[in-house]
Amino acid sequence: MAYELFYWPSIQGRGEFVRLALEDAGADYVDVARGSSKDGLGIRAMMRVMEEAAHPPFAPPFLRDGNVLIGQTAEILLYLGPKLGLVPKSETGCLWAHQIQLTVTDLVAEAHDTHHPLSVERYYEDQKEEAAERAADFRKHRIPKFLDWFETILARNPAGGKHLVGRSTTYADLSLFQIVEGLSYAFPKAMKRILKTTPRVVALHDAVSERRRIKAYLASERRIPFNEDGIFRHYPELDA
Amino acid sequence: MAYELFYWPSIQGRGEFVRLALEDAGADYVDVARGSSKDGLGIRAMMRVMEEAAHPPFAPPFLRDGNVLIGQTAEILLYLGPKLGLVPKSETGCLWAHQIQLTVTDLVAEAHDTHHPLSVERYYEDQKEEAAERAADFRKHRIPKFLDWFETILARNPAGGKHLVGRSTTYADLSLFQIVEGLSYAFPKAMKRILKTTPRVVALHDAVSERRRIKAYLASERRIPFNEDGIFRHYPELDA
Repeated sequence: MAYELFYWPSIQGRGEFVRLALEDAGADYVDVARGSSKDGLGIRAMMRVMEEAAHPPFAPPFLRDGNVLIGQTAEILLYLGPKLGLVPKSETGCLWAHQIQLTVTDLVAEAHDTHHPLSVERYYEDQKEEAAERAADFRKHRIPKFLDWFETILARNPAGGKHLVGRSTTYADLSLFQIVEGLSYAFPKAMKRILKTTPRVVALHDAVSERRRIKAYLASERRIPFNEDGIFRHYPELDA
Repeated sequence: MAYELFYWPSIQGRGEFVRLALEDAGADYVDVARGSSKDGLGIRAMMRVMEEAAHPPFAPPFLRDGNVLIGQTAEILLYLGPKLGLVPKSETGCLWAHQIQLTVTDLVAEAHDTHHPLSVERYYEDQKEEAAERAADFRKHRIPKFLDWFETILARNPAGGKHLVGRSTTYADLSLFQIVEGLSYAFPKAMKRILKTTPRVVALHDAVSERRRIKAYLASERRIPFNEDGIFRHYPELDA
């Protein structure tokens, strides 16, 4: 049976990390909230699951696999990794991939806060000054700190610096690709500088973009373009 | 062999969620950075692990168990849960406990940002105005949203509303106890109001505080008092 992915239909957002894994594996899945209410899909169908489930996730994305319902992006990937062949079989490998994904999660939350430093309840336009300060800090301190960590763990990988975990592609590699894509969309000037210091991260990003199914996915209509409702937003005034 | 916990020695912070699990289980552990450099412990010993490990965590806390090194609070608990008997044996139970812990992680990050909305590089005193706005939003919207979710999942637990997962105590229960403690320290006025709407959360908090080993731990010197270097800080001007 097809996996059912539940996420907001008009943004890449956190759901994109799951979409990339499903797409790379060629998995059969339904992107529920992007479907039509005529077919029992759409946002209402997603909200209904959250309202009725015994184990309701705090927020999308979540995944249904038969009777199993799983929330939190990193946990969805922890669950899917072995099924999709996107993680090593060893416990150590699974834990390391998950730890990297949890660090991606932290970075994503900080990226979001650059345009919403005061409140998610209010518009960006109502917190632009504070966003400028937070974004400056993010560009100067936080992006370099995170990307330097990714560069370091690539360099220290005993199996060589081409993958984050072991010697083959994991969902962590796909997620780092998405981080580079998202940050480069939001902060093109800053990222152009920063990526010069992280050659292994760049090489991994480029290698992922050339993977057959990823390439096809990125060129398809299933890939929602970045936009200013998502997590990675391009506001020129926040970049430098 | 004793577990080795690595975390900043002068705050509860994120490490406290791990300490509570180890303490409740009566596990043998060394709180490495709180030890003396004469014994090969202390902060330097912690930093050395981060500098040299093949799989360096992005930040403390992390745990060493023989050859296994694990970072990220929620992943440490995912790993320790079965070993400490603080999670059900079923995969569903383990995943649900972990999902709850990941939501605790999100809440902790937001609690931290109430006093550092613009930058972790700068002092609270340099971002007090913005902190007041972020804290007001946190009190009004975010604490109620998170605590309402905990109340809901307690109410929907088919095994009864006394535990978050199944019918016995898990690390998720201990973590919710710590959330209530921390938020009540930081925002006593707001929490007094909000907790009136979440009786199951209050009952679970109270039950955890009466557990034999937790009670002994809380009364011991091993429990670091809350303070204004940690995540949950009491700045009266941020409460109302």
